[in-house]
Amino acid sequence: MSKEIGITAKKNENFSEWYTQVVIKAELADYAPVKGLIVLRPYGYSIWESLKNSLDEKLKNTGHQNGFLPILIPESLLSKESKHFAGFNPEVFWVTHSGNSELGDKLALRPTSETLAYSMYSKWIKSWRDLPLKINFWNTALRAEIKATKPFLRTSEFLWQEGHTVHATKEEAEQEVMLILEIYKKTVEEELAIPVITGKKTEKEKFVGAVYTTTMEAIMPDGKALQMGTSHFLGQNFSKPFDVKFLDKENVEKFAWQTSWGVSWRLIGALIMVHGDDKGLVLPPRVAPIQVVIVPIYYSESDKEQVIKKSKEIEDTLSKKKIRVHIDTRDEFTPGYKFHDWEMKGVPLRIEIGPKDLAKDKMVLVRRDSQKKTDLSFDNIEIGIESMLNEIQQSLFEKAKNLLAEKTKDVLDFEKFKSELEKGLFLNSPWCGDQKCEEKIEETTGADIRVLPFDSKKSDAPCIICKKPSKEMAIFGRGY
Amino acid sequence: MSKEIGITAKKNENFSEWYTQVVIKAELADYAPVKGLIVLRPYGYSIWESLKNSLDEKLKNTGHQNGFLPILIPESLLSKESKHFAGFNPEVFWVTHSGNSELGDKLALRPTSETLAYSMYSKWIKSWRDLPLKINFWNTALRAEIKATKPFLRTSEFLWQEGHTVHATKEEAEQEVMLILEIYKKTVEEELAIPVITGKKTEKEKFVGAVYTTTMEAIMPDGKALQMGTSHFLGQNFSKPFDVKFLDKENVEKFAWQTSWGVSWRLIGALIMVHGDDKGLVLPPRVAPIQVVIVPIYYSESDKEQVIKKSKEIEDTLSKKKIRVHIDTRDEFTPGYKFHDWEMKGVPLRIEIGPKDLAKDKMVLVRRDSQKKTDLSFDNIEIGIESMLNEIQQSLFEKAKNLLAEKTKDVLDFEKFKSELEKGLFLNSPWCGDQKCEEKIEETTGADIRVLPFDSKKSDAPCIICKKPSKEMAIFGRGY
Repeated sequence: MSKEIGITAKKNENFSEWYTQVVIKAELADYAPVKGLIVLRPYGYSIWESLKNSLDEKLKNTGHQNGFLPILIPESLLSKESKHFAGFNPEVFWVTHSGNSELGDKLALRPTSETLAYSMYSKWIKSWRDLPLKINFWNTALRAEIKATKPFLRTSEFLWQEGHTVHATKEEAEQEVMLILEIYKKTVEEELAIPVITGKKTEKEKFVGAVYTTTMEAIMPDGKALQMGTSHFLGQNFSKPFDVKFLDKENVEKFAWQTSWGVSWRLIGALIMVHGDDKGLVLPPRVAPIQVVIVPIYYSESDKEQVIKKSKEIEDTLSKKKIRVHIDTRDEFTPGYKFHDWEMKGVPLRIEIGPKDLAKDKMVLVRRDSQKKTDLSFDNIEIGIESMLNEIQQSLFEKAKNLLAEKTKDVLDFEKFKSELEKGLFLNSPWCGDQKCEEKIEETTGADIRVLPFDSKKSDAPCIICKKPSKEMAIFGRGY
Repeated sequence: MSKEIGITAKKNENFSEWYTQVVIKAELADYAPVKGLIVLRPYGYSIWESLKNSLDEKLKNTGHQNGFLPILIPESLLSKESKHFAGFNPEVFWVTHSGNSELGDKLALRPTSETLAYSMYSKWIKSWRDLPLKINFWNTALRAEIKATKPFLRTSEFLWQEGHTVHATKEEAEQEVMLILEIYKKTVEEELAIPVITGKKTEKEKFVGAVYTTTMEAIMPDGKALQMGTSHFLGQNFSKPFDVKFLDKENVEKFAWQTSWGVSWRLIGALIMVHGDDKGLVLPPRVAPIQVVIVPIYYSESDKEQVIKKSKEIEDTLSKKKIRVHIDTRDEFTPGYKFHDWEMKGVPLRIEIGPKDLAKDKMVLVRRDSQKKTDLSFDNIEIGIESMLNEIQQSLFEKAKNLLAEKTKDVLDFEKFKSELEKGLFLNSPWCGDQKCEEKIEETTGADIRVLPFDSKKSDAPCIICKKPSKEMAIFGRGY
């Protein structure tokens, strides 16, 4: 493969350029004609489908159902919860015309669907019998980005799911918030092999309109934090303006308790950054569109026939075990070119078979993550490949856990905080709970509080800014 | 169930009101705040998911992959193929602002994605190695409806899939058009139990920008025709303006050959109309969100315990066979209320179990379609339920085939044509092929040519309008 076709930027030299090259050259996505929008190519969309299927199954198993909401929301509805509207208004796309006619009311392209969903819920919910109502929507949201956009990480339209639930009691709604966060964490850790820190957002960072927001945060190799998904406790903040009420068992009318939550294709961005290397993408087997690629190697026509025949047998065996396998029979490329091509595309495992391997009844396995080569005899193919794929998945997760551990540091002193931050770290530091200290850190260093971890211990150390007694430890970082 | 809660309109007295009541009361969909838009409730969305999964599997098995396109298309791109733009322009929603700023170029909400997809394809396709390119997109399209809207049948935003393929030769592209139409027909007939007539659209009725359009048409119980899906041969009509070119094996640059095709949630509308009755929805088992509902019947606490226990055993057995089953254990409703409720929602099969049944080791099965009751012994449950569901599926299809046969009539004379049309029929009549005759029929009767069936025989009879020799038989009807 020529230099020009492969990835030319180094991950640890020019991270941003490396990222963009991987997205484009591995054919995950491409830029759409409108600035800030991207198109997903089949290879990228397949990763989203795997992630979606995994999450969808978990949501259905916990009593959630899917629905559909239209993309257009009248301005009057979007503005009904004032803080929420103020938060989203600057980035709303507005439809003002249909054909050549001007519309009476302008219509927003959904930046998120709380307002629309709850105006419907208030019609559907009459009594406790209709609760809980737990509906999820797989769709896209649109938020006009002013900052520099980046595929998957910051785009003006993004694929996501948004869940919206209604409960009879505060307790049940809060349990839902936590259940979802657990499902998200499990999905991201098991499918994408990316470890996350879960906890609460501060008042300043919470979702506009929520009582509180829970979050999962990950760290990227460039030291920047990435919010991987959020689950919000809305309390009665929306049920009151949107009139989401129910008759309880005693026939008393009450306002309901609500939650909303979402993850987006930003997770694909995280996947690329966390696992990729200078050769390109490295995909965890669970979400890889192709898990195993077979590259037949031959130099004569008679070899070719034998090698291809065996390759097809192997493909057949693996397909039957539901392993996603592909044989690269392209005649116009050399084996070496093919190796690099599939490495760039991050296929977890490569099988090489040549005439010499055939003679010994074995094939060569090459792991994408470690580049390690091993032989596998044809007899052991079924168990051998499957266990190798599991090993790769596990090994990527371990490596990512090490990255997170290395890049998370306890810091008690503000001078130290500033110098450590330059290294690109999550800083675990004591905080008094005052928003002024949070703002001061952001102004002076560009770091914000990413998460107040659930498992954080109370610290005896004083607040890193004001030196007053601290309330809790907070994870600070500079974010995407 | 009180009259007010059930369906109050009769299907053969006030078809339109009956249809709307079924949609709303069976909780398939509801009206959104913006006129012409609907929300899909989980019960309705689940039908779409079944349909989607079935079609998606067939498309993947024939080498298609999914992708994602953003919803915003710049005006300059949309207008690049002039006939296409002229066709869609009057119904395009335009985004003119983001936040408080006016956009430089106004952006269309996709009415269909040919223009956007092909501007991308022209970047991706370099040589014959990149062909065929067969990508499908599950998304929504937006077309501002001026006529009266109706859930599923005519809405300003609708769920659909749009496939867009590129081929090296005309022959291959034309084969793709037919392959897709076959897949559509199979899906609609096998999953939705609705028979269709396949064939070509006339020049007048074809997709704007296509060389020709193939279609599948069905007839509804009110005698109106419904277009169920279309597959277009685009020839090089788009590849030329959008520069979709490739180097062939001889290294000669050529314009590619293209197809596009789609089906929408309109199919759910057809499902409701074709199978429903005065009690409400009647769902074919293959797409029913709940295939079997168990209604336990008891009048004492001791009976209750026994009956519920057995019901749960049955639920367990059926769930393991991947049958979608639900027990209605609501204490606040009578069995009679529950029967009507699930009948309105179209659940194909009801199981009733009371203490007397328990004593005889059997349950009562009630078919939604025929209302026929039969006993089934507990021993035969696994095979019994499954074969009953298959029988219902088949029987709905047979009934719908009879409807189509009854409502399709050969007519050679124009006076007869006019009187038969008033009965609500598909009229199979000779046509000379001249667009003037086609237009004249539409002006005088409101009927258009729905389809030129593939299997139509050449007729000796003269054109029904001009009396000149006919070219072929055409199916005329009044459409939705």
